Amino acid sequence: MSVLVTPYAKLEAQFTELHQIEHAQSMLSWDEAVVMPHSSGPARGEALAALAALAHRTLTAPETEYLLDAAEAGCDSLDTWQRANLRAMRRIHTRAVGLSEALVSATQIAAARCQQIWRAARSENDWKVVVEPLGEVLALAREEATALGEVLKLDPYDALLDTYEEGTRAQDVMRLFDDLKAFLPDLIDRVLAQQTAPLSVQGPFSPDDQRMLGEEMMRTLGFDFTRGRLDISHHPFCGGVPDDTRITTRYYDDDFMESLMAVLHETGHALYQQGLPANWRRQPVGNCLGAAMHESQSLFIEMQIARSRAFMVFAAPHIRHHLNGRQGDDAWAPENLYTNTIQVRRDYIRVGADEITYPLHIILRFELERALIADELSVSDIPDAWNEGMTRYLGLSTDGNFADGCMQDVHWFSGLFGYFPTYTLGALMAAQWFTAASKSIPNIEEKVAAGKFGPIVAWLRHAIHERGQLKTARQLLMEATGEPLNPRYFKEHLERRYLG
Amino acid sequence: MSVLVTPYAKLEAQFTELHQIEHAQSMLSWDEAVVMPHSSGPARGEALAALAALAHRTLTAPETEYLLDAAEAGCDSLDTWQRANLRAMRRIHTRAVGLSEALVSATQIAAARCQQIWRAARSENDWKVVVEPLGEVLALAREEATALGEVLKLDPYDALLDTYEEGTRAQDVMRLFDDLKAFLPDLIDRVLAQQTAPLSVQGPFSPDDQRMLGEEMMRTLGFDFTRGRLDISHHPFCGGVPDDTRITTRYYDDDFMESLMAVLHETGHALYQQGLPANWRRQPVGNCLGAAMHESQSLFIEMQIARSRAFMVFAAPHIRHHLNGRQGDDAWAPENLYTNTIQVRRDYIRVGADEITYPLHIILRFELERALIADELSVSDIPDAWNEGMTRYLGLSTDGNFADGCMQDVHWFSGLFGYFPTYTLGALMAAQWFTAASKSIPNIEEKVAAGKFGPIVAWLRHAIHERGQLKTARQLLMEATGEPLNPRYFKEHLERRYLG
Repeated sequence: MSVLVTPYAKLEAQFTELHQIEHAQSMLSWDEAVVMPHSSGPARGEALAALAALAHRTLTAPETEYLLDAAEAGCDSLDTWQRANLRAMRRIHTRAVGLSEALVSATQIAAARCQQIWRAARSENDWKVVVEPLGEVLALAREEATALGEVLKLDPYDALLDTYEEGTRAQDVMRLFDDLKAFLPDLIDRVLAQQTAPLSVQGPFSPDDQRMLGEEMMRTLGFDFTRGRLDISHHPFCGGVPDDTRITTRYYDDDFMESLMAVLHETGHALYQQGLPANWRRQPVGNCLGAAMHESQSLFIEMQIARSRAFMVFAAPHIRHHLNGRQGDDAWAPENLYTNTIQVRRDYIRVGADEITYPLHIILRFELERALIADELSVSDIPDAWNEGMTRYLGLSTDGNFADGCMQDVHWFSGLFGYFPTYTLGALMAAQWFTAASKSIPNIEEKVAAGKFGPIVAWLRHAIHERGQLKTARQLLMEATGEPLNPRYFKEHLERRYLG
Repeated sequence: MSVLVTPYAKLEAQFTELHQIEHAQSMLSWDEAVVMPHSSGPARGEALAALAALAHRTLTAPETEYLLDAAEAGCDSLDTWQRANLRAMRRIHTRAVGLSEALVSATQIAAARCQQIWRAARSENDWKVVVEPLGEVLALAREEATALGEVLKLDPYDALLDTYEEGTRAQDVMRLFDDLKAFLPDLIDRVLAQQTAPLSVQGPFSPDDQRMLGEEMMRTLGFDFTRGRLDISHHPFCGGVPDDTRITTRYYDDDFMESLMAVLHETGHALYQQGLPANWRRQPVGNCLGAAMHESQSLFIEMQIARSRAFMVFAAPHIRHHLNGRQGDDAWAPENLYTNTIQVRRDYIRVGADEITYPLHIILRFELERALIADELSVSDIPDAWNEGMTRYLGLSTDGNFADGCMQDVHWFSGLFGYFPTYTLGALMAAQWFTAASKSIPNIEEKVAAGKFGPIVAWLRHAIHERGQLKTARQLLMEATGEPLNPRYFKEHLERRYLG
């Protein structure tokens, strides 16, 4: 019997190998952030760069192009999942061959250098020293955007945005953001005028107690600890692979809520990752959809579920138990803890901003990075533009305050342009998912208050997680919510929660 | 200006990439043993297998053969290190192309299956169930031995032994082992007749206290914590890479000494790894020499240094301090702790055997595995042969006791034949190194007793660590000790310590 290996089957084998390289990259990155000794960085950096080059070479091997053509010509014999897989392979391949290895490598080196300089300069509020390296990174990002734009027939900025959120264009983002710009500033005024300060909860809270609380919340939400972990890192993140999903947080002695909310946020990411289709783990179609979809899952858990009054009814006794809170102390009451989680404040820093001011931080960055990529703004003009934007949107001057202004985020300094909008797209999407879930799950608030998250997570699994990349984000939204992304649900959610 | 890339330079680039794949393999293996959630094993196994296949393919690319030939033809222009590097590359390449990818893959699959069956069967003392899978593994090991033997012009068993200890042949091992067989049984009788039992030290000892003790000992010996860690795993090991060296131990509430000695043993391995030549980290010549040399470094620290009276003079106050021992209690006195570390006992289990009976465990395994590879012993005859050997060498019957007999070690069940002798070669070598070091370092015992290990580790660095694979093990021994491996130093060491 002769076995015919089809072009499609050969591609699956090749992408399985790529998946295994990604497994290694993902675990080495986790290790770097969580356990690696501090002087081992250079060797780790070299290893990660070599794996990236290896993956790029595997992907751009001359044979791949031929196999993709042949598989697409014979795609009648493929089933729906295979066809979606082939489509995802083509997308990855097109983007890889669109960039020369020289450009990829130059970007990586420039970004690593810039990020290193930035890290030291930020703590000294020294803008001048980052101008040159950031200029180099930006020039390479423009080159990348142009090269990708040519291949994908997109405007340069759209080509970058499309990397993180397939099919989304700057025009779509602008339309949504214009809506928010008209809505949020006034809402913030009204909320600030009427919000009350919570009673403060007395620490110190030991890291071990906080960890046990976090783990209990994760378990209750459905995180599978036989295929995942919770650890500590400088910035919370969700990493690893679907069969080994690792989230992190950090602990503060005097504030358990920030850490707990980070755990719940990352748990949202983790549920998505752990819930991906088991049969397609090693193939592109088995991956998560873009960054906005991922963020919608973390914000669904954090913003729609965990920062709700109902959730605190469930969580308060567990919080008090793990953190040794005094019985009968009003500070530990659900209502006070809830009030604690929904405080609004105009502030300089995006990370840690509340959900009402957060989109304004994003809108500022989106507008500036579009101008940067379009060559309408130069690096040396960033501080003034930042100050002007922050003053306009949040009434805060960052004049001379680079560390808390345009130097606060790692993104640009590490070559990441086009990513920022996905945070807010995710927030809008989360509200839309939650509205749809509330319609389909009876008494959802009571379930949350009782800690019965099973039906809610099952709804997410069915509507999103187990679909992988079978469909686009837009198609999933249409199927589960009946319409494309609509900011209405986010705005209604904010009004209900903060003015209700 | 045109840049000429020489064949040798191309090989360096290719082997750098292999080094980075090994970096990933090494870290993923550490992760698997130390932090990986228990259901993530299959995905990790697949990733590791894919990386191994990738490395094999890189190594056996048609171009490599041509590059090696060309570089060897032009080796006059290379310096000493480069020439040694080229020699190491050729060795790795010859062994890789000597095995078909099909055989490598079949071995990996059979070994993984057999190991899994063995793990469950051992705890149930069930020999019958492992006969078939072990037979399959053995058949593949014979095939590998034959294939490598043809390429290397060696007897099959020698070809395997040469994998772990270049240039060493079964004949050499037999000569050394015959010497030990004539010496050890009588020595054991004499030691047992005169040894005294130590006072027992009262626990429990918390894992945290034990860890802090271990870390202090590591630091004092020169372990670099900015490029390494100490963690917990089921079996102690030394892993990672030179720039990120990770050792492990396990802790028992009632016995701190076993864990401490494991830490010191692995620290010996770690000092070797951390001390490899910094300029050659990414090339074969910058690697450790074989398994015996590695074991000689761990046993130098554990057996020659740490289980000495002088070491306990230094260590006892630190041990008492970290483990909250009672001042003035004789159990915590240096002499009693020393007595504790040198107890001799005829026992079933190799791991944890004292240094006098240990070689007899190894000799038994060496004799059986030679017969297995030579097809003079079949898998079904192993239990009887084991029982016969244990009775002869240690006066212990393992009749019907498979778990504590021929099923105790993972080696054969995971396809490892030809490795066992290196443990005892390492012990002999360690004694020879120590004798030479004692001649060249004035008052070595006083230095040990004062915790001044700097000159001793510097001696190891100079004689061994920083040489990488520049020379063979035999050449290093000749240079530093004036003669090839000689069991005399080991025997003298045992007599001095146990009868002295």
